[in-house]
Amino acid sequence: MYRSHTCGELRMEHASQPVTLAGWVQTVRKFGSITFIDLRDRYGITQLLLGESLNAQLDNQPLGREFVLQVKGTVTERTNKNPNIPTGDVEITVSEFTILNSSKTPPFTIQDDTDGGDELRMKYRYLDLRRNLVKQNLTLRYRVNRSVRNFLDSRGFMDIETPYLIKSTPEGARDFVVPSRMNPNQFYALPQSPQTFKQLLMVSGYDRYYQIVKCFRDEDLRADRQPEFTQIDCEMSFVDQEDILTTFEAMTKHVFQEIKGITFNEAFPRMTWEDAMKYYGNDKPDIRFEMKLVDLGETARGNGFKIFDEAELVVGINAAGCSEYTRKQLDELTEWVKRPQIGMTGLIYVKYNTDGSLKSSVDKFFNEEGLKLFAQQCNANPGDLILILAGKEERTRKAMSELRLEMGERLGYRNKDVYKPLWVIDFPLFEYAEEENRWVARHHPFTAPKPEQLHLMDTPSEYGKIKANAYDIVLNGTEIGGGSIRIFQKDLQEKMFSALGMSKEEAQHKFGFLLGAFEYGAPPHGGIAFGFDRFCSLLGGSETIRDFIAFPKNNSGRDVMLDAPSEIDQVQLDELKLSLLK
Amino acid sequence: MYRSHTCGELRMEHASQPVTLAGWVQTVRKFGSITFIDLRDRYGITQLLLGESLNAQLDNQPLGREFVLQVKGTVTERTNKNPNIPTGDVEITVSEFTILNSSKTPPFTIQDDTDGGDELRMKYRYLDLRRNLVKQNLTLRYRVNRSVRNFLDSRGFMDIETPYLIKSTPEGARDFVVPSRMNPNQFYALPQSPQTFKQLLMVSGYDRYYQIVKCFRDEDLRADRQPEFTQIDCEMSFVDQEDILTTFEAMTKHVFQEIKGITFNEAFPRMTWEDAMKYYGNDKPDIRFEMKLVDLGETARGNGFKIFDEAELVVGINAAGCSEYTRKQLDELTEWVKRPQIGMTGLIYVKYNTDGSLKSSVDKFFNEEGLKLFAQQCNANPGDLILILAGKEERTRKAMSELRLEMGERLGYRNKDVYKPLWVIDFPLFEYAEEENRWVARHHPFTAPKPEQLHLMDTPSEYGKIKANAYDIVLNGTEIGGGSIRIFQKDLQEKMFSALGMSKEEAQHKFGFLLGAFEYGAPPHGGIAFGFDRFCSLLGGSETIRDFIAFPKNNSGRDVMLDAPSEIDQVQLDELKLSLLK
Repeated sequence: MYRSHTCGELRMEHASQPVTLAGWVQTVRKFGSITFIDLRDRYGITQLLLGESLNAQLDNQPLGREFVLQVKGTVTERTNKNPNIPTGDVEITVSEFTILNSSKTPPFTIQDDTDGGDELRMKYRYLDLRRNLVKQNLTLRYRVNRSVRNFLDSRGFMDIETPYLIKSTPEGARDFVVPSRMNPNQFYALPQSPQTFKQLLMVSGYDRYYQIVKCFRDEDLRADRQPEFTQIDCEMSFVDQEDILTTFEAMTKHVFQEIKGITFNEAFPRMTWEDAMKYYGNDKPDIRFEMKLVDLGETARGNGFKIFDEAELVVGINAAGCSEYTRKQLDELTEWVKRPQIGMTGLIYVKYNTDGSLKSSVDKFFNEEGLKLFAQQCNANPGDLILILAGKEERTRKAMSELRLEMGERLGYRNKDVYKPLWVIDFPLFEYAEEENRWVARHHPFTAPKPEQLHLMDTPSEYGKIKANAYDIVLNGTEIGGGSIRIFQKDLQEKMFSALGMSKEEAQHKFGFLLGAFEYGAPPHGGIAFGFDRFCSLLGGSETIRDFIAFPKNNSGRDVMLDAPSEIDQVQLDELKLSLLK
Repeated sequence: MYRSHTCGELRMEHASQPVTLAGWVQTVRKFGSITFIDLRDRYGITQLLLGESLNAQLDNQPLGREFVLQVKGTVTERTNKNPNIPTGDVEITVSEFTILNSSKTPPFTIQDDTDGGDELRMKYRYLDLRRNLVKQNLTLRYRVNRSVRNFLDSRGFMDIETPYLIKSTPEGARDFVVPSRMNPNQFYALPQSPQTFKQLLMVSGYDRYYQIVKCFRDEDLRADRQPEFTQIDCEMSFVDQEDILTTFEAMTKHVFQEIKGITFNEAFPRMTWEDAMKYYGNDKPDIRFEMKLVDLGETARGNGFKIFDEAELVVGINAAGCSEYTRKQLDELTEWVKRPQIGMTGLIYVKYNTDGSLKSSVDKFFNEEGLKLFAQQCNANPGDLILILAGKEERTRKAMSELRLEMGERLGYRNKDVYKPLWVIDFPLFEYAEEENRWVARHHPFTAPKPEQLHLMDTPSEYGKIKANAYDIVLNGTEIGGGSIRIFQKDLQEKMFSALGMSKEEAQHKFGFLLGAFEYGAPPHGGIAFGFDRFCSLLGGSETIRDFIAFPKNNSGRDVMLDAPSEIDQVQLDELKLSLLK
C-alpha cells in the first residue's frame, strides 16, 4: 500500500494518527531548519512538516515542484490554520519520506493562471491536465455523463453499442475512411453518428436506446470544432414529437439540477424556426435578452435613400438605453459590421435622445417624423438607440443577428451564469444548396415531413414549404442538441432519397439495409442527439469545448502531443495495397 | 401518445381499464368469428381479442406476422389463463385497431429456435435482433455495463474519454489506419487500447480511471474474434499488484452478484504462470476440474519405446473412471489428437482396470509394474484411464492441454452454470519471437519487471527469466482480463524499448510523449483491462461473443448487413491523395 489516506481527507479527527500519503510536490517552503511542503493529489492538498533531521536529508536530495513523494508521519494540529482548504486544520509531521520519482521543472506553471501558451500546453497536455481548472472540467464532464446515464437508465433507455467500422455513405459531412486489409481496395467509414443503427434498433424493437458515443467528421475545422466529438445519442419508438421533447426536457432539467443546482420550474419555451429567423436572425436564438429584429423595409423605402431603396432587407434592433453612444462608439460599431466575417458596407443609427428629439445618420432623407416611425416600430423610447442594417436579405439578417449578440455582450445581457434553454421547432425539411443546385436535407435524409404536408413531397417546387417535426434544443444561443421524428415507411424514404437527387440504384447501394428493414414492420420512431462536448462546456461556463476534452486536437486536426497523424511504414501501405500521391 | 401501456405490464388489477397498446404481431389465431393476436414489444406479449365486427375489417386488411399494430380496447380477464407469461391473466378486448406498418414475411422465424442460418441472420441482423435470445443477450450486456460502472463509480474511478484518432505505433498487433485529408500522406491509427493515454492520465494525477471503450485490431480473424471489440479499461495510481487484484476481484464479485445472483465468499485462487503451464499446459486453466498434467518423462524413457525415448516431453492425464473406454472410443480419441489443429501422431493409453490389472497400448515395452508406475504418478486408481502424449515439448504440452479440456467436456466437468474464476500471476516479462529473432513483450512494452529482477534487464541472456507483476483473470478456461504494474521511470522504459530491439530514435519517434511524461513526476501505477464482449458471453453462458454484439462482423471482417467495407468514390481517394494498387 502506497498510502493510507489521500491528500484530501485528513481532518482534526485524525489528529495523532499515523498515516502514509503519496502525491506531488506543489510547493516547498523553507523556514530555517523547518521545511513545509504542500503535497497534492486528485483529492486535495495536505501540508507536510519536515523537521531538522529530515531537512538535512533534503540537502542531499533536493525536492522540486512536481516530484512524486511518499511520506509517513503523524497527523498534527496546525498552529497556522488555513481556512481556505478542507485539510487546512492539520499537517503531517513527517518521520520518513521517499522520492518515488523526480521531475524536471515543468515548461509552465501548474496553476489556474498558468504562464503556458496554448501550443505549449497542448504539447504537454499531460501537465496541463494537472491544472485544477482542467481537472474540474473533466470531473464535470464525468459527472454529466453519470447524470445523463442515471436519468436515461431510470426511463428505460438501454445503452447499446453500435459499430465504428461502418459503410461510407457520402451524404452530409465528409467521412473518415479506414482501408481494409482483408478486403483489399475497400474501405470502412467511421460513423458521423449512429443514426441508421439506432433506427435499426427501433425496427428491432429495442424501444428506447441511448449511447454516449464518439462520432467523426472530416470537415475543415472551424475554431472549436473537433474531428472526433461525443454525442448523447437517443432514439425512441411509438412516440411523437411531444414525447421526445418532454423526455429530453426532463433530462436537461435533471442534469441542471444535479450539476448546477439550478431548478427550472417552467416548461422550456418553444419557438418555431420561422419566428427564430424572423425575430433573432438565426435558428439558435440567445433568449437571455430580447432586442428582437424588426423589419423596417416599409418605413425605410421610398424616401430617396438609395441603400434602403435597393435593399432586399432593412432590419433594425433597439439597443435600449444607448442613446448616449458617442461618435467614436458608433464609428467603432460601424467598423465592426464592416469586418469581413460580418460583411456589411455600413451601419445606420437612429438616436432617440432622452429629450425626445431624434438624430440619425440618415437625417438627409428622414425628418423627425420619419425617424419616429422607426422608433415606434422598434418599440424604442427616449434614451434608446436604433441600429439598422440594409442589404441582401440573407447576409443582412445574419449580420444583424451577429450585431444583436455583440450588443447583448456589450450591454452585459449574456451572463454565463444565467441559463435560458429553448426548443426551436418546425424546421424546414429541405434547404436548397446553391452550389450543388439541388435540395438537401436540412436535418438528415431520415427526417419525416409533417404528416399534413406529405402531399407536397410530390411537387419539387413546393419542397421549400415542407416543414418537419424536427427540433433543436438551444441553450444561451448555442445548439446543444437536435433531432426529429423519422421516416419509417419504405416508400416515403425512397421518395425522400429521390427528392435529394439520389437514383434508386444509388439509394439501394447506400441504404439498402435501411430500406430493407422498413419492409419488415418498422415502428414510428424519433430521437435526438446532444453534443456532449458542447453541453459540458456550457455547463462549465466556457466557450471552448477543447477545455472539456482530455486529449483534444488542434485546428488542423493534429494531436501535437502524440504528433499524430504521422507517416506510416511502407509495409503498412503495401499490406493495404495503397500508394500515396504527392 | 401511441400507447398508454407497454405489452408487458397489464395485470388483473388493470381489468376494465381502457388502454392503448402498440407493438408487433407475434401470432394471429382465428377461431370462427373471433381472432386472437399476440402483440409483442420489448417488454412482453399481450393477447388481443378481436370480435366479430373487427374480424370483418381483418378480411379487408389481412394481418401478418411482424405487422406493427396500434390497438385501443379494454383490459379483460381471460377465460383461458396462460400462467407462463406475466400478462397471462388478461387480454385486451379490442375496439379499434390501426395498422401502423406492414411486414413482408420474414426470411426466418423470429423465435428462439429460429430456422434461419448464420449468414441469413447476419444479413437481416435487424430481424435477428428481434429474437428473444438475442434481446436477452444485449440486455445482459447493458446490465453488466451498468453494474461495472456503478461499482467503479463507487470506488472513485473516473470515466474519461480518450481519443480514437491517434498515432500508429506498429508494435503488438496491426493497427487500422485512417488517412488524414488535412495532413496529406499522413495517417491516424485507431487505438488497439487506450494504454498510453490511461498511463498519461495517471501521470496527470487522475488517480483512478476507467472507460468502457471500443478497441481495434487488424488481425486475421480467428473464429469469434472481432476487428472492433470493447474493453473495460482501468488504471490506478499509487498501487501495487495486490491493490489491483483486490479491487477487480471485488468488481467481478459485484457483477456476479448483481447479474447472476452468485456469491463468491472465498478469495479467487491464484496460480503462477509457471504452475499453470506445468499443470494445465496453458496460461488460462479451466479449474472447474482437476485432471492435471503429469510429466512422465523419467518413467517413460529408457524402455526401448522409441517415441518416448525421442520425445522432449512425455505427459499424461488421468481420466478418472474411464477404464471401460472401448477400443472404438480410444481410436476416436486417437483420431482427435491427430487432427491438424492438435497435430500429434498418436495417443498412448494405460487402462487401470477395476480388477487392478493394467492394460496399455505400449504393453510391448512396459510390463504391469512399469504401467503401475505411470498410474502412481498420475494418482490413478482402479477404474481410471491414463492418456499419454509424447513429442516436441511445446506442441505436446499444448495438445495435452486441449485433450484435457476435451476429456473434461466429454465427462461433463465443464458445466456452464459453474463459475470458477482464477488469477494467473507472475507472467514472464518477455517471450522470444522465433520468426522475428528477437524478444517481444509478453504483455506489452509498458509492463514493469519484478523489482527484485531489475538487474537482469542488463543481460539479454537472462531476459527469459524475468517475471513481471502481470496478471490475468481467467474464468472457466477463458481469459477475461489482464493487466500489469507499469514502468513509470524514463530510464527503465528506455531500457525496455531497447531490449525489444527499438533504437533510441525509434523509441523517441513512437513514444516520445510517454518518455517525456515520465520526466515530470510519473507516479507508480498499474491497471487492467477486461474483454467486455467475452465477459458478457461467459455470463450469458455462451461461447460466441458475436451473440452479445448488436451489429457484429463476420470472420472476414465484413458487416454483411451494411455490405461494408466497400469501394469509395474516386473523389474521396483524390481528396486523400491515395491511389489503389491491384
